[in-house]
Amino acid sequence: MTQLFEKAKRLVSESIVAPKGFSAAGIHCGLKHKKKDLGIIVSEVPASVAGVFTTNAIKAAPLILTKETVYANDKMQAIIINSGNANACTGQQGLEDAKKMQLLTAQKLEISPNLVGVSSTGVIGEQLQMDQVEAGIAKIEAGNKLENAIDFAQAILTTDTVMKNTAYSLEIDGKEVIIAGVAKGSGMIEPNMATMLSFITTDAHIEQKELQALLKSTTDVTFNAITVDGDTSTNDTVLVLANGLAQNDVLTPTHPDWQQFAEVFAQVAQDLAKMIAKDGEGATKLIEVTVDGGLTDEEARKIAKTVVGSPLVKTAVFGCDANWGRVICAIGYSGCTIDPTNILIKIGDITVVEKGEPIPFSEEALTEYLKNHEVKIYADLHQGTGSGQAWGCDLTYDYVQINATYRS
Amino acid sequence: MTQLFEKAKRLVSESIVAPKGFSAAGIHCGLKHKKKDLGIIVSEVPASVAGVFTTNAIKAAPLILTKETVYANDKMQAIIINSGNANACTGQQGLEDAKKMQLLTAQKLEISPNLVGVSSTGVIGEQLQMDQVEAGIAKIEAGNKLENAIDFAQAILTTDTVMKNTAYSLEIDGKEVIIAGVAKGSGMIEPNMATMLSFITTDAHIEQKELQALLKSTTDVTFNAITVDGDTSTNDTVLVLANGLAQNDVLTPTHPDWQQFAEVFAQVAQDLAKMIAKDGEGATKLIEVTVDGGLTDEEARKIAKTVVGSPLVKTAVFGCDANWGRVICAIGYSGCTIDPTNILIKIGDITVVEKGEPIPFSEEALTEYLKNHEVKIYADLHQGTGSGQAWGCDLTYDYVQINATYRS
Repeated sequence: MTQLFEKAKRLVSESIVAPKGFSAAGIHCGLKHKKKDLGIIVSEVPASVAGVFTTNAIKAAPLILTKETVYANDKMQAIIINSGNANACTGQQGLEDAKKMQLLTAQKLEISPNLVGVSSTGVIGEQLQMDQVEAGIAKIEAGNKLENAIDFAQAILTTDTVMKNTAYSLEIDGKEVIIAGVAKGSGMIEPNMATMLSFITTDAHIEQKELQALLKSTTDVTFNAITVDGDTSTNDTVLVLANGLAQNDVLTPTHPDWQQFAEVFAQVAQDLAKMIAKDGEGATKLIEVTVDGGLTDEEARKIAKTVVGSPLVKTAVFGCDANWGRVICAIGYSGCTIDPTNILIKIGDITVVEKGEPIPFSEEALTEYLKNHEVKIYADLHQGTGSGQAWGCDLTYDYVQINATYRS
Repeated sequence: MTQLFEKAKRLVSESIVAPKGFSAAGIHCGLKHKKKDLGIIVSEVPASVAGVFTTNAIKAAPLILTKETVYANDKMQAIIINSGNANACTGQQGLEDAKKMQLLTAQKLEISPNLVGVSSTGVIGEQLQMDQVEAGIAKIEAGNKLENAIDFAQAILTTDTVMKNTAYSLEIDGKEVIIAGVAKGSGMIEPNMATMLSFITTDAHIEQKELQALLKSTTDVTFNAITVDGDTSTNDTVLVLANGLAQNDVLTPTHPDWQQFAEVFAQVAQDLAKMIAKDGEGATKLIEVTVDGGLTDEEARKIAKTVVGSPLVKTAVFGCDANWGRVICAIGYSGCTIDPTNILIKIGDITVVEKGEPIPFSEEALTEYLKNHEVKIYADLHQGTGSGQAWGCDLTYDYVQINATYRS
């Protein structure tokens, strides 16, 4: 955490309605059996919008629609989201249903459909029950209280076990600026886009072009640096709304506080990314892999992701087995530039490999360390100055159980 | 299976000593607690040799040595293999130990060390107990009976639950030619080379150049088309010895029976690859994915491998869940050319997706089908004429159990 970043503070309320002018809601409309399944975010005024979307060639209907909407317009004012059904592999009907969700939301809020984003998550290949969705949109009422944000955070969950919220406040041009975020996602998690849904709200004043560039570069080192199971979903989306109500001077890379804003923005994304990784299906532990000494940052990040994605590393962490051989093996098959005789590996603070060979360490101390809920693995490749991090989780009996019986 | 191939027959004995002039043995030398852990294959005469090796940048000492030996010489006469210890990440000492294994074997057989291959499999990062290995090499005596081949097949296993043997006989130039193979491997299995050990013996008369080219092209569609967990090991090796004792005319691509020989050779490799996939750690089912209509064979194979490697597909097959959404999702993130509106998917004989959308099918019939020990998934992309296959296994509680406690 740099000096700049220390000026910001994390908000206890962690609510996407903390930034000025945002409201939200979450209700049960009938797509799920009992739980909340429809959410909405609304800004008082049209907000600058930025989005990143799945790289999967199979894209869900709402994602296709929202991507078009973001690319065609520089503003967005509301996002409507359902869980319980991904509206993916649903053909023409699916696209029409997504458009209807957009239109109904726009009519209700008396704004242009071009200002409405649509997102869905859940089972693939079933048509949306539009009766329920339509009745839900008629009923849902956004509010700006903490409980409204919590309702929303719950409404977007699928197999998640916890809500994922974060929020920070910082000062720009003497004004308080808040950046907040909410996310869902615990299975089908693999970088190369989001592989989850995440919505970031801020009252900062920033134009679409700068916001989109910031989101893209941030995504590479946060949402795209997590992996649960290597499966990239059809629906993954990150949307950012910046409504300008903090009334700071417009933020561009030449603004004296740009760097601070960018760092806090990245922290919001990293918080959400780590929460998703930690809540990976069946996970008991967050695994953080840090790689230094790579030829480039990209290579270092790729190696970190390869290690954190290795099923053998993941099961070893689950079993508290100090099996560093699997770590060095994964580094080896990352496809990056490696000098096998020059690798240093630490698990927690304990050095286990130096110059590519094992060195004596206390198995007992390491096994004890591996019982923590956050396990850190570190590698220095001594190849260059590239650094990177990635986050994932252990692979457990429960992952198998959850996914063997998902639709049952 | 083509007309040509029907002339060949599978041998009931399935033994690597079935080809003329080969003998083998497997004994317990003390690297494992009780099980056999040292194996040897010997040819009466120096044999043409071909090899393919792991793409992992971290290579085990015996693999480095054997690769050098294969590249520097066109013949090999014996292979010595230990299990229980991979001799990987063992530095200079590891290389010296591998060389000593080569030398001791050569001295015992009274042949040049250049004619001896060395292979190891097991735990990474521990120095070999050379006392045991040395005593084992002094003791081991190769024989040409079925039981000797079985001893060998057992001696190379680690977490495997079954031996993996296959053998075929065919006629070339009026002579009986036999091709046989043996393999081990069930964890750390992912293409891009072998990720396992496999040894193929044949009495065919063929030179190194042709044998190496044949092994390379065969490996791409067999050993490199299987995946258990995406982890590419440090030790993976396929070695082929062809000693010429069948006395056929030398086989080159212009020989009238070349195609037949190549097909039977590929069948041996495919048999072994499928046995490895089926015996994947904790697996209860073999999954075979066939893709037609790809832009190229390579793309079709890549898509097949992506599907068979998806943890979500693997858990769905384990749970007998007809979750075709995960299949189409994996096709989508394969990175290949896809037209989402033109995909057909079958599970067994049951069509579940047409033109990218689900079509009605009997869930009951499909759930019943998924209870089989071999599950076939088929996709037609309607993009071109490329075809490919890949094999894998389901992901089960036992995979987690085996790997969470491997060293305990």
